[in-house]
Amino acid sequence: MIYLDNNATTKVDPKVLEAMLPYFKDEYANPSSVYEFAKRSNHAVRDARGVIKDFFNAENEKEIIFTSCGSESANTAIRGVLNMNKSKRHIITSKVEHPCVLNLYSALEKEGYKVDYIGVNSNGELDLAQLESCIDSDTALVSIMYANNETGVIFPIEKISQIIKSKNPETKFFVDAVQVTGKIPIDVQATGVDLMSISGHKFHAPKGIGALYVNSKTLITPLIIGGHQERGKRAGTENVPYIVGMAKAAELAMDNLKHEATEVKRLRDKLEANILKNVFNARVNAGIMSRVPNTTNIGFEYIEGELILLHLSDLGICASSGSACTSGSLEPSHVLRAMNVPFTAIHGSIRFSLSKFTTEKEIDYVCEKMPSIIEKLTNISPFQEELQALKARNRN
Amino acid sequence: MIYLDNNATTKVDPKVLEAMLPYFKDEYANPSSVYEFAKRSNHAVRDARGVIKDFFNAENEKEIIFTSCGSESANTAIRGVLNMNKSKRHIITSKVEHPCVLNLYSALEKEGYKVDYIGVNSNGELDLAQLESCIDSDTALVSIMYANNETGVIFPIEKISQIIKSKNPETKFFVDAVQVTGKIPIDVQATGVDLMSISGHKFHAPKGIGALYVNSKTLITPLIIGGHQERGKRAGTENVPYIVGMAKAAELAMDNLKHEATEVKRLRDKLEANILKNVFNARVNAGIMSRVPNTTNIGFEYIEGELILLHLSDLGICASSGSACTSGSLEPSHVLRAMNVPFTAIHGSIRFSLSKFTTEKEIDYVCEKMPSIIEKLTNISPFQEELQALKARNRN
Repeated sequence: MIYLDNNATTKVDPKVLEAMLPYFKDEYANPSSVYEFAKRSNHAVRDARGVIKDFFNAENEKEIIFTSCGSESANTAIRGVLNMNKSKRHIITSKVEHPCVLNLYSALEKEGYKVDYIGVNSNGELDLAQLESCIDSDTALVSIMYANNETGVIFPIEKISQIIKSKNPETKFFVDAVQVTGKIPIDVQATGVDLMSISGHKFHAPKGIGALYVNSKTLITPLIIGGHQERGKRAGTENVPYIVGMAKAAELAMDNLKHEATEVKRLRDKLEANILKNVFNARVNAGIMSRVPNTTNIGFEYIEGELILLHLSDLGICASSGSACTSGSLEPSHVLRAMNVPFTAIHGSIRFSLSKFTTEKEIDYVCEKMPSIIEKLTNISPFQEELQALKARNRN
Repeated sequence: MIYLDNNATTKVDPKVLEAMLPYFKDEYANPSSVYEFAKRSNHAVRDARGVIKDFFNAENEKEIIFTSCGSESANTAIRGVLNMNKSKRHIITSKVEHPCVLNLYSALEKEGYKVDYIGVNSNGELDLAQLESCIDSDTALVSIMYANNETGVIFPIEKISQIIKSKNPETKFFVDAVQVTGKIPIDVQATGVDLMSISGHKFHAPKGIGALYVNSKTLITPLIIGGHQERGKRAGTENVPYIVGMAKAAELAMDNLKHEATEVKRLRDKLEANILKNVFNARVNAGIMSRVPNTTNIGFEYIEGELILLHLSDLGICASSGSACTSGSLEPSHVLRAMNVPFTAIHGSIRFSLSKFTTEKEIDYVCEKMPSIIEKLTNISPFQEELQALKARNRN
């Protein structure tokens, strides 16, 4: 099997599993209990919080909240900020956020919030002028993802932060960093972000653990109310094994950043260049200037993406046509639509996302197989005339 | 180490860890992905849902929502029902609910809800007449725990359900079953419950997984909005290993119910009888008629509970003075206060909670050590006159 869907989820690093195992065995105490036995799990959570603090480059451990996933982090951040500023009813986000965030905004619109959705150009780059013009005194929150999960395009977070704070210093800035974690360095202080969410299973920790950074100047209400855990910001007995595991994954990710920027990027670029060279009706669905190193989104004109995925799956190659959260839906990607990817390519767009576990041999195999898969599907496409015209055009 | 704090959390059963391991290793696909590889994790979640359905004796798998913990389950149930019935502003609960539920009700009171708190008698039994008199046409929700976490007293859920439905058939009934799971059989259909929450780590699954039963006649809004997971009732990539683990724990728990009712109960009764026999200032803080088989709460009059716990901890014995979520707090237990446990005993109350892993040897050791610990602390108590009077009274 060749797994090129690391933006959907990643394999747990064996070192992460190893770090978790003691907490599935003898170290099972509730960290809130008072006896000696509980101090070990309590300290494990404390130490993990320190690691995650460093991972965000936060100022203080108190700014870190452990959650159960990226969706919970985002819901906590967004609801938490809005509940603390109930008089303000305006939110700004982008058209290309993760479906989890967009669905929450739909719900908030029904509750009476006004939401502006910032567009992107055909390279997938955010319209910063539109963003700036939308911010006013009623804007409680701007929520922009760090990088898009489908295209890998990185947004200029520091610049966005400056725009927000110069227009309305009271507006809070939430960044969904789920898709960049472990791929590029994150630094909440340097980028001037108020809240930032991450999800463990996108960087080789298990599914079911996330974190939320909330800077000390930003007040939020808890989403899950109950016990005193997470300084009253998130009730529920701490998931000690996964907290320890995510901290280990964060350490490994920090050590691996150079490898991502060089080796993972080299393999991604090799895959992309190879397909573009050998498949006449392929195009990259993004500007290639500023992308996370592991992702490429390629549109194959006049053919059906689901058929490509089926053929890949038959060869044991896992890729996707977009977010796993929307897979199974036949609607074309909201991200590619926002980028005005032509109708002819949008249905045949495939995301390949690599990881540190991806090998050159795997990439070579995919490079070898893709042209014949696409050729086969191109031959049965009902758009033969258009394909001939495209081929002629590309030859010139 | 002797672990008698199984109401705070339990050891992960080695069979549960074994069941989870494949999902920490090769079976890491996102269950929402479409390729063959993802079908295995998808089916693992589906099968686990079937097991949890049977565990609740629910009618349909669609009535099961996987969550990250008991607190999330309770928050989802309570907020979910209230959001669906916004015109109704009245809630009924008990004075002895878990702090996680009580804190949520405090928050709801601040949001304008009227909350009635039903009292208990000195045996810890709920005042059903008061409950009945409180239900009116505005009552959106009644929320009563299945058994109390501190005393183990079981509430008559089926009877409460009948009272509610005869007074107002539209009132929803939520039962926090976290403390009975694996200790007594649960059956949502026989008891006529609308929503019921459980938490994996109380029955030998890990911390960080829970479930919520919501019957098909009860509509709720999601707490975590986002992807389509859990039929739109709970967003977030499924925590496949823990879901599989909790299902395994549920299977083991069902097999173990007889052992709980006989062997665990025998050891608990032995511990209790022994302490009552050998410690003149000990009293059981509950009626002993209807309790979960693993729990005893014993008040030691005129001495300080925290000192008892320290001495126990020094001997490697883990017990607690109440909920782990409130440990560290010096306030006496809200549960024992609601039961009117005398001031003289409330500060010296200790909860021992056993599990299937508790051995006779361990209980014998605690039986052997307790009298001398209590004697030592009794000797340094500032209430010597009262203690002498109590001793004389008990001798008669």
